[in-house]
Amino acid sequence: MGKQNLTLLTDFYELTMMQGYFNNNMNEIVVFDVFYRDNPCNSGYAICAGLEQVIEYVKNLRFKDDDIEYLRSLKIFDENFLNYLKNFHFTGDIYAIPEGTVVFPMEPLLKVVAPIMEAQLIETAILNIINHQSLIATKASRVVYAASGAPVMEFGLRRAQGPDAGTLGARAAVIGGCIGTSNVLSAKLYDLPALGTHAHSWIMSFDDELTAFRKYAELYPLNTTLLVDTYDTLRTGVPNAIKVFKELRDSGKMPEKYGIRLDSGDLAYLSKMARKMLDEAGFTDATITASSDLDEYVIESLIAQDAKIDSWGVGTKLITSKDCPSFGGVYKLSAIKKGDKFIPRMKLSENQWKITNPGNKKIYRIYEKDSGKVKADLITLHDEHFTSDKPLLLFDPIATWKKTYLKPNTYTLRELLVPIFINGKCVYTSPSVMEIRDYCAKEQDTLWDECRRLTNPHNVYVDLSSKLYQIKTDLLNEYYASL
Amino acid sequence: MGKQNLTLLTDFYELTMMQGYFNNNMNEIVVFDVFYRDNPCNSGYAICAGLEQVIEYVKNLRFKDDDIEYLRSLKIFDENFLNYLKNFHFTGDIYAIPEGTVVFPMEPLLKVVAPIMEAQLIETAILNIINHQSLIATKASRVVYAASGAPVMEFGLRRAQGPDAGTLGARAAVIGGCIGTSNVLSAKLYDLPALGTHAHSWIMSFDDELTAFRKYAELYPLNTTLLVDTYDTLRTGVPNAIKVFKELRDSGKMPEKYGIRLDSGDLAYLSKMARKMLDEAGFTDATITASSDLDEYVIESLIAQDAKIDSWGVGTKLITSKDCPSFGGVYKLSAIKKGDKFIPRMKLSENQWKITNPGNKKIYRIYEKDSGKVKADLITLHDEHFTSDKPLLLFDPIATWKKTYLKPNTYTLRELLVPIFINGKCVYTSPSVMEIRDYCAKEQDTLWDECRRLTNPHNVYVDLSSKLYQIKTDLLNEYYASL
Repeated sequence: MGKQNLTLLTDFYELTMMQGYFNNNMNEIVVFDVFYRDNPCNSGYAICAGLEQVIEYVKNLRFKDDDIEYLRSLKIFDENFLNYLKNFHFTGDIYAIPEGTVVFPMEPLLKVVAPIMEAQLIETAILNIINHQSLIATKASRVVYAASGAPVMEFGLRRAQGPDAGTLGARAAVIGGCIGTSNVLSAKLYDLPALGTHAHSWIMSFDDELTAFRKYAELYPLNTTLLVDTYDTLRTGVPNAIKVFKELRDSGKMPEKYGIRLDSGDLAYLSKMARKMLDEAGFTDATITASSDLDEYVIESLIAQDAKIDSWGVGTKLITSKDCPSFGGVYKLSAIKKGDKFIPRMKLSENQWKITNPGNKKIYRIYEKDSGKVKADLITLHDEHFTSDKPLLLFDPIATWKKTYLKPNTYTLRELLVPIFINGKCVYTSPSVMEIRDYCAKEQDTLWDECRRLTNPHNVYVDLSSKLYQIKTDLLNEYYASL
Repeated sequence: MGKQNLTLLTDFYELTMMQGYFNNNMNEIVVFDVFYRDNPCNSGYAICAGLEQVIEYVKNLRFKDDDIEYLRSLKIFDENFLNYLKNFHFTGDIYAIPEGTVVFPMEPLLKVVAPIMEAQLIETAILNIINHQSLIATKASRVVYAASGAPVMEFGLRRAQGPDAGTLGARAAVIGGCIGTSNVLSAKLYDLPALGTHAHSWIMSFDDELTAFRKYAELYPLNTTLLVDTYDTLRTGVPNAIKVFKELRDSGKMPEKYGIRLDSGDLAYLSKMARKMLDEAGFTDATITASSDLDEYVIESLIAQDAKIDSWGVGTKLITSKDCPSFGGVYKLSAIKKGDKFIPRMKLSENQWKITNPGNKKIYRIYEKDSGKVKADLITLHDEHFTSDKPLLLFDPIATWKKTYLKPNTYTLRELLVPIFINGKCVYTSPSVMEIRDYCAKEQDTLWDECRRLTNPHNVYVDLSSKLYQIKTDLLNEYYASL
């Protein structure tokens, strides 16, 4: 993706609106928030991801001559505006929650503070990137949680929605906790472990399964994982694998890592039978890897039935987040700067949940001091300041009678949004993906186990400061009074 | 996508297997088939798409120095093999069904006849590309069918699974019948109509809705579509739009195309009320566009309730194929060439439906002569020859007692697979996307309406020639006798 110019990766209306602002001499500083309304996949949280690609995209924003030429050919943009585009680059500020952080609905994952023309152009690409990677990172974290410590490998490239979905999806899956990917390009680009052994076609290219296994073991003496379901798992596959393992043992060439992979059939039954056969032949340290249409629910259910599976390869349902293939991130105008002040703006809706939070905002994460677990998030105005030596009253912004009172020094605070671009200059260095993965694992440890449950999890509260709540209420009242 | 080197866009095991073939001096010509087992989204057919990108990918297959360096760093590939990769290019043949064709389960959409090392490497990328675009083209064709002639616009970039999913997805959506896309990059790359007007942020950037509408109408006097749901659709949005339309009419500046867009709320109710308000004000030719979480089922249901919607913008649920976000295309070895003969190979499974069709094959589509509608598809060996002046007996390959007898000259035949690469040279020129779209519309006309029904459609039969059926049966018997 890095090498492509993605400047035109935007919705057409961003450009028609930009021209509108241009022709009306409107280029106020505005604030746009990226946030989402519901956690994907019935999850109690999401993992935000994609920031590194957003940074690359913003850094490389330039309309090339052929882009201008193309826009001119549409006969809707005038020359003054096209001239402006020729010299376009991003001059604003961007704040974001670091990749791999656990996040919750309604809070800004990313905030753009920039001249409106610039802020408008970048809406679509930012949403595209953040929505995609946050979705897959969240899904992966659920699959990894279900696997209860057994390694999960990302195997989905062939079913991903295009090359980027495979490559950036694998990146996000590793952030969410996968140990590596089968996708070689992604492994190269993001320095991830490249994983995999062989396919059915390897077996079928030989006259018989046993020869195929022997040849494979000869070639890869360090890690010999044999795929046993090309013909018949228990009648030929596992017996042939055991035959080869015995030959290796007899010749003193036992591989350091070895085992079998199951790719079809009832994985609980087959893994138990295979485990028994391997153990009886003395191969108690042979691993059993399973793949075949897995997701967090299937893995949880197989483990509940005591399936003997040491390692999981997860493809389609992870790389597409099959049961919930979109992350509903939106990008909403929340303030316009007039003079030194940010004037709050709000989008209304008949659905209370869909009314946006106005103003230039920041987020505090509140941790219980003793346990280090997340208590709640608090969205405040950007110039409010909270410290943990004071009492803190939290209240639900919709059901306002629901209140929690935190005593001084029983909690700690952390600001979630960090500066990424200031005056158009990138001030942030992305960690490596494997570093983000480690950070993300620690982040998930700050959640109560009840929030990580795969179905009907407990929800973490995201509250508004009293000041912010008041501004929102006033704007609502003002609007309805004006009707 | 075109500018990226996708040579490493492959599963790691393709490379370990390649090295296995290399070290064993195995480089026989083999046949691999791309096919799928079930139509996506409960559809009675699929639309195949992605061939142009497969061609680009195969043409550009080259391991660059840094790719070789990367593979060397993994310490699993030896120098002889890395040297071989340095000079690697595709030398084989590829046959495929042209993009935009209606296709059915179990038939090869694409066939690779090439030395096994080459055929193995390209598995993953071919599946990734074909699976993605065929999925979205199929989904789009369903949405367009539901819209019953009203135009459908692709609006999903912000929720697509990464940049390619948005850009190639828009390409596929147009093949499936969308009139254009909001995605400017895709519109530029594939010469598609770029569509869209303005967002809520346009309205919110002004002090009031009326001013925002006026300014927009001034700027875009040829096509003035106003988004009316930022504050309150019927109380402010539609009345303000009508006010602006009246001002335009009074000043003799009525736009050629004008209307409103609804983006939330109950679209049946709101569109009927808005239509009434517009008509009463004399704006009977104002169009009503709807967007907001649409798919084929919602559109069908809104039309059944007589919603007054002239044009549809479809986003998330089309660009992700939300209810079925993967297309299950697989790539299976079906034959190995020994001397002049193709020796059939078959993957077994306990599930009869999952047993592959062996041999080097081709496909005839059989049309009813009078109606031009598709009667069935017939998979045969590549060297079988059928003509329509002979009687033809079709039988179901699983329920073999189900037979259909076609009289001579009551049907016509068409071979579906056409040569794309011969001896590594591309012999095919892709039509433009808009040409493929026209072809695809004609293709869908060859289906009986019963096959296009959105739920529980009639299925088209895909049968095997007697010769092919016999080979499959013999291989099965032979294998089970050997156990």
